[in-house]
Amino acid sequence: MRCEVIAIGTELLLGQSVDTNSSWIGEQLALAGIDCHYQAKVGDNIQRIVDLLTLALDRSDAVILCGGLGPTQDDVTREAIAQYMGATLKRDPALVDRIRERFAARAREMPDNNLRQADVPVGASSIAEMPGTAPGLICPIGGRVIYAVPGVPSEMRTMLEGSILPDLKRRAGSEAVIRSRTLRTWGQSESGLAEMLAGRIEALDRTGNPTLAFLASGIEGLKVRITAKGADSAQVDALIAEEERLVRDVLGDIVFGVDEQTMESVVLDLLRQRRLTLAVAESLTGGLLASRLTDIAGASDVFRGALVAYASDVKHQHLGVAEGPVVSEAAAAQMARGVRDLLGADVALATTGVAGPSPQEDQPVGTVYVAMALGAQVETRLLHLGGNRRQIRQFTVIGLLNLLRRRLLAA
Amino acid sequence: MRCEVIAIGTELLLGQSVDTNSSWIGEQLALAGIDCHYQAKVGDNIQRIVDLLTLALDRSDAVILCGGLGPTQDDVTREAIAQYMGATLKRDPALVDRIRERFAARAREMPDNNLRQADVPVGASSIAEMPGTAPGLICPIGGRVIYAVPGVPSEMRTMLEGSILPDLKRRAGSEAVIRSRTLRTWGQSESGLAEMLAGRIEALDRTGNPTLAFLASGIEGLKVRITAKGADSAQVDALIAEEERLVRDVLGDIVFGVDEQTMESVVLDLLRQRRLTLAVAESLTGGLLASRLTDIAGASDVFRGALVAYASDVKHQHLGVAEGPVVSEAAAAQMARGVRDLLGADVALATTGVAGPSPQEDQPVGTVYVAMALGAQVETRLLHLGGNRRQIRQFTVIGLLNLLRRRLLAA
Repeated sequence: MRCEVIAIGTELLLGQSVDTNSSWIGEQLALAGIDCHYQAKVGDNIQRIVDLLTLALDRSDAVILCGGLGPTQDDVTREAIAQYMGATLKRDPALVDRIRERFAARAREMPDNNLRQADVPVGASSIAEMPGTAPGLICPIGGRVIYAVPGVPSEMRTMLEGSILPDLKRRAGSEAVIRSRTLRTWGQSESGLAEMLAGRIEALDRTGNPTLAFLASGIEGLKVRITAKGADSAQVDALIAEEERLVRDVLGDIVFGVDEQTMESVVLDLLRQRRLTLAVAESLTGGLLASRLTDIAGASDVFRGALVAYASDVKHQHLGVAEGPVVSEAAAAQMARGVRDLLGADVALATTGVAGPSPQEDQPVGTVYVAMALGAQVETRLLHLGGNRRQIRQFTVIGLLNLLRRRLLAA
Repeated sequence: MRCEVIAIGTELLLGQSVDTNSSWIGEQLALAGIDCHYQAKVGDNIQRIVDLLTLALDRSDAVILCGGLGPTQDDVTREAIAQYMGATLKRDPALVDRIRERFAARAREMPDNNLRQADVPVGASSIAEMPGTAPGLICPIGGRVIYAVPGVPSEMRTMLEGSILPDLKRRAGSEAVIRSRTLRTWGQSESGLAEMLAGRIEALDRTGNPTLAFLASGIEGLKVRITAKGADSAQVDALIAEEERLVRDVLGDIVFGVDEQTMESVVLDLLRQRRLTLAVAESLTGGLLASRLTDIAGASDVFRGALVAYASDVKHQHLGVAEGPVVSEAAAAQMARGVRDLLGADVALATTGVAGPSPQEDQPVGTVYVAMALGAQVETRLLHLGGNRRQIRQFTVIGLLNLLRRRLLAA
C-alpha cells in the first residue's frame, strides 16, 4: 500500500508558511505500515493539482491532499478533484446544515461563499469528522482513493486519525495493531546511543518486530522510539513493555521520560512526590529556567520563585555572593544558598556563566557554573558548552535540571 | 524562468525531521523574481530521484536538489545526477584537497568514505562556497541546470546566496535588483491591516512595483513586507524608502520594528538610548519576560534583574504586595513599585494573572493585570486574553513590552 501527500497552497511555495502537515502525515503513515515515497507542494492552481494527482495515482494507491478547502476563490482543491474524476460538483444539503450550525454555535455571521465548502464531487463523500467549517473528502476512484483535508493542522489531524488512517489500513487489508512509545534521553550523542543499543538493534533486525528508531528533538536530547505490530492491543503492549525494559537496562538513567514528558515536567513530578519546594537563582540563563518550569501547569505546587540576578551588584546585595568574580564556583554555590534562604525553599538551583557573544571576567564564552542546594548540601559543576548564546542558555537549563533529576532519583 | 526544489532524505518522508529548506528557498526564489510551481520530497533512492529530475526538467528550467550529499552509502544524490546526465562520476583532486583541509583545520580524522564527496559528474562543476565538508554542484544540461546543495541549512543558504541565486538571475537574463524590507507590527489582525492598507494595495496593484505582502509570524505579530525591483540599488532603496514612509503614515506606531528586530530588542534599544535601567516582577509569566529580554546580547547594559514571585507569600514578603488577592490591579502596581525599589532600577514592569488551565481567585483563565513604573508614575492595564497557557503567557509579555515601547516613544 502506497500513499502520497500533496500540500496545496501558494503561500507554501513562497515560503510565507512552512508545511509541517506532510511531515506529521508521513510519520503517521510510517507508523501505520503504509509506504510514502513522494510528498509534494503545489500552488492554488487547478491544472497543476490535476497534473500532480494524475502522476501520483499512476504510481501509488492513495493520495492525501492537504489544504485549499477554504471558502475563497483561491481554494480550488474541490474543483481539481472533480476535474480529475471527470465528475461535477454537487452541493450537499446535509453539509450546508452542518456548516450553518458551526457558524451559529460560534455566534458568527456566515458569509455566503462558505457554502462553496458544501460542494462535493459526485461519487465522493465527506469525512465524518469536521472540527472546523471545512468538510474533508473521501473520493474513491476504481481501487484507488483521494483524501482531501483542510490545511489547519488540528483539523487535518482529527480527520487523519478518525477516518483516513483507519480507511487506509482497511484498504491495505491490514488487521494489525501498531503502536509506539518514545523514550526521551539526555546526555548521549546519536552514535553513542547506537553503539550502546547495537545488540538490541541487531536482535530486532532479525525479528523485525518491534523496531527501534532514533529521532532528534533539537536541543532537547534524543528520542528512542519503540514501534510494535501485533494482532491485538494486549500483544502489542506486551512487546513494547518488554523492549522498553531491555532498552532501559542498557541506557540506565539517561532515559529521563517517555512520550510527552519533558525534563522540567519530570523534575517537578519528582519534587512533588517528595514534597519538596524549589527556588532558582539565575544569571546567564536570565529567567529561562524559571520560565520553562512555570510553562508546566501545576508548577505552583512546587515552584516558589526565582531571583534573576543579572547585574553583579544584585548578586552581592540579595544573594550574599561575596565581592569578586561572579563567574565562579563560589558564586554559583552562594547564589543557590542565597535564593534558598531568600525565598524559603527546600531545594535551590543556580546558574552563572558566559552566554556570549563576548567573554566575561577573562572566561571564554560557554564557561558555566551551576549549583544545586538540597538541605545543607551544595553541589556545583563546571560546564564547558559549545554553540551560540541561545544554545548555551538552553543547555545550561536542561543540564542543571538533569543533575537535579539524577540527584533526586539517587536519594 | 522556472525553478523547482527537491528535498532529498528518507527521514523527511518519515517525519523524523521537517523540511524547512525548501520553504526558505521558495522565499528567496520569489524575491529573485523566479517562479517556483512545484516542490517535492523524496527518499534516498536513486531511481526515484532520477524520475523526479526527469519530470521537473521537463516542465521547468532549473532544479535545486537539497540533501543526500553526505559521505555515507545512503547519500546518493551525486549518483542520481550522474545517471540522469548519462555521465560518469570522476573524483576531483582539488576537492579532495579541500575536504582534507577542512578535517585538518578541525583537527579531526577524515574517514576514507568522505572522499566520495569529491566525486563530480563529468560535465558538472563544484560550487565555490563550501562552508562544511560537502561540496555543492552546478550541472548544466543543454539550456537547463541542476544545482545540488547539502541539507544542512547554514551550508545550503551560503551556497544559495553566493552562487545559485546569482547564476539563476544571470540565466534569466535579469539585470534587475530586487530587495525587500519587512515592517513588524503588533496589535492588528490580518484583515485589519488589509483594511488599513487597502488604498496602498490598490495603488500598488496598478504599478506592480513595489509590492506589499502580509506574513504571519505566529504569536509575534504580523509582518508587512515591501519588495521592490529596479535597475540598481539606489533606485530600489528609494522605492522601498518611499513606500515604507507611506505605510508607516497609515499604520503609525503599530509598527514596532523592521527586519530582524524583535519587540524586546526594540525596547532594550529605547531604554539604552534614554540611559534607563529595567527590572521586572513576574507572576503568571514566571520568568518568560526576563528570559526574552536576556536572550538579546547586550541586555546587561539595561536589564538589572527580575523577581519571579510565583508563590503569593513571596509577593507579600519581598515586593510589598498587601495581603489579599494577588490577581488584581493593586497587586500589579505594588509588584512594579516593589521590584523597582528592590533591584534599584529606573523602570519596572510587572505581571500577575491567570495562565490556566484552572481559574484562580474566582477569576477566569486569561485575566491578566500588567503594570509599568517609570519614576513616580505607575500605570496598570487589565487584559482579557484568549488561547492556551503558553499563548496567554507570551501575549502578556509582548503586550506589556509594547506598552512600555509606546510609553517611551510618547515621552
